[in-house]
Amino acid sequence: MTVLILTCEQDVTTDMVVAHLNDAGVPMVRLDPADLPGGVALSGEYVHDVFRGHLSAGGRLVSISGLRSVWVRRPGMPATRVPEPSAWLTEEASQAFYGMLRGTGARWMNHPDAARPARHKPWQLHLAQRAGLPVPATLITTFPQAARDFARRFTDLVVKPVSGSHPHEYARVVPTSRVAPGTDFADVAFGPTLLQRRVAKRADIRLTVVGDRLFAARKVVAPDADPDEVDVRFATSAEPWRPVDTPPRVAEGVHAYLRLAELTYGAFDFAEDAEGVWWFLECNQSGQFGFVEIETGQPIARTVAQWLAASPATPRVPKARAATDEPA
Amino acid sequence: MTVLILTCEQDVTTDMVVAHLNDAGVPMVRLDPADLPGGVALSGEYVHDVFRGHLSAGGRLVSISGLRSVWVRRPGMPATRVPEPSAWLTEEASQAFYGMLRGTGARWMNHPDAARPARHKPWQLHLAQRAGLPVPATLITTFPQAARDFARRFTDLVVKPVSGSHPHEYARVVPTSRVAPGTDFADVAFGPTLLQRRVAKRADIRLTVVGDRLFAARKVVAPDADPDEVDVRFATSAEPWRPVDTPPRVAEGVHAYLRLAELTYGAFDFAEDAEGVWWFLECNQSGQFGFVEIETGQPIARTVAQWLAASPATPRVPKARAATDEPA
Repeated sequence: MTVLILTCEQDVTTDMVVAHLNDAGVPMVRLDPADLPGGVALSGEYVHDVFRGHLSAGGRLVSISGLRSVWVRRPGMPATRVPEPSAWLTEEASQAFYGMLRGTGARWMNHPDAARPARHKPWQLHLAQRAGLPVPATLITTFPQAARDFARRFTDLVVKPVSGSHPHEYARVVPTSRVAPGTDFADVAFGPTLLQRRVAKRADIRLTVVGDRLFAARKVVAPDADPDEVDVRFATSAEPWRPVDTPPRVAEGVHAYLRLAELTYGAFDFAEDAEGVWWFLECNQSGQFGFVEIETGQPIARTVAQWLAASPATPRVPKARAATDEPA
Repeated sequence: MTVLILTCEQDVTTDMVVAHLNDAGVPMVRLDPADLPGGVALSGEYVHDVFRGHLSAGGRLVSISGLRSVWVRRPGMPATRVPEPSAWLTEEASQAFYGMLRGTGARWMNHPDAARPARHKPWQLHLAQRAGLPVPATLITTFPQAARDFARRFTDLVVKPVSGSHPHEYARVVPTSRVAPGTDFADVAFGPTLLQRRVAKRADIRLTVVGDRLFAARKVVAPDADPDEVDVRFATSAEPWRPVDTPPRVAEGVHAYLRLAELTYGAFDFAEDAEGVWWFLECNQSGQFGFVEIETGQPIARTVAQWLAASPATPRVPKARAATDEPA
């Protein structure tokens, strides 16, 4: 059984995981869907009620039914490295590739159908509430009056994009920032705006979850930190990330969250307040872990490799999630 | 409890359903997400572990928790009717709108998370096989040699796009057509190609499924029909669509298909061969039904209205599909 890794060529995080898989002698194919068609080829036939599919990359041919797991890491868009790219060819190649891969019985980290909605901030807040994680009061609105009312109730606010950052379009990353006192909010009518009570934090928490393994890291906020630097991704702090234990209730919460979201990997961001409460900020289903591993020494890459290499527990039917019992 | 209909302004099929809902006195809001922000506004707050959301359109305000059902018919892309549209604003508005709507406990026809993969042709073929529907031998490949081998085994073939037609981009509709004898297939290396055994059909079947109700219609192939006209959508036939009974095994098959796909509506196309076997061609999760209703008199619009108006059977938790039991 083979591990399939979908990512771009330059990806040191994948290199770390690949090294562990190689050490363990686990068969593996790494490819970028951007190279389909071309360096990557596929073929699948549906004959006599049976599906037989194959992928080929770098001279290796792998059977889709022989896949152990699929790691969707940082794949390029299909058909973007052909001589004459087009939206139509990308659509055709994308549907052929992911449509066919859906026929596998392999375990996914993460399945594309789960990954897509998991990026929606309103859905994340909803899941966090259901999972019992503390969520700072949040408003998403195009009503200026609703924003003004919210600002009266919660005087210290931050604003952030609804859609967060797109994993492949870094230009889109907009930092979370504080809302200046006296802001009028008339402009929210022109675009949905996410306002959130600012957590007066004493530390940032990054909690990386791989299957059922938790790796929490904590970065204290320096006493002289600028309170306008609310976004840890853009802060200039020299404080290191250090390993920290996950409180049992948070552990329960993140497991519930990932179960509801049907994710097997998630990188959670929390803000720790003065009483030690971890406030949920977001869960990035494809969040980086390399920087945490390097600073904390936590064996995240090895754990990802172990998860990918594990034998399927049961001969799962191909990914068709349990049907909801829709009334007719 | 209110029915929410997402569609564009010009949509006569929706008008048919709306008329039935009005007759039954069912509260209803019809809107096009393209009008957000502007004619459509939204607001949702997550405070003290509770979510409260509202949509406003045409001067009406509706609570997201007060929705009975959501019909995703032909919605425009969010934020495309603002004075200065941008990909960024569409992404923000889209995530705010659909992310927030995911928090509803309403029933969906169809849920966006189910609708998206349901368009993938390889996934459709896979589901049809699993559901026990007869599928004509099919190959999807970028290997010229695989195509040549397939053409030797199945001499009479059609070719069709892998991605089918996009519901909002009619320019993309490419008809299914016959493969000329002696075709070389070298070009399949440049783009995934779907080849399928041509079913020598005596009739086309359109089977529209609404919840658990089936409406089958049949259009006979005229004896003098051009055998190269394989795509009923583009054929010049003057034969009418007539109601026909659904064979019990087909009924079982389509119900299984929709259950696996988590769809509550589907328009299935079959080709009926000389022995009366219905061969699965595709299932369009947003397929038109107006033309069938007009020719056959089948009460499809009324059935859609009844499905939308039905009371939720159980207070369903907001759409978070049952978690898969991923091993850790």
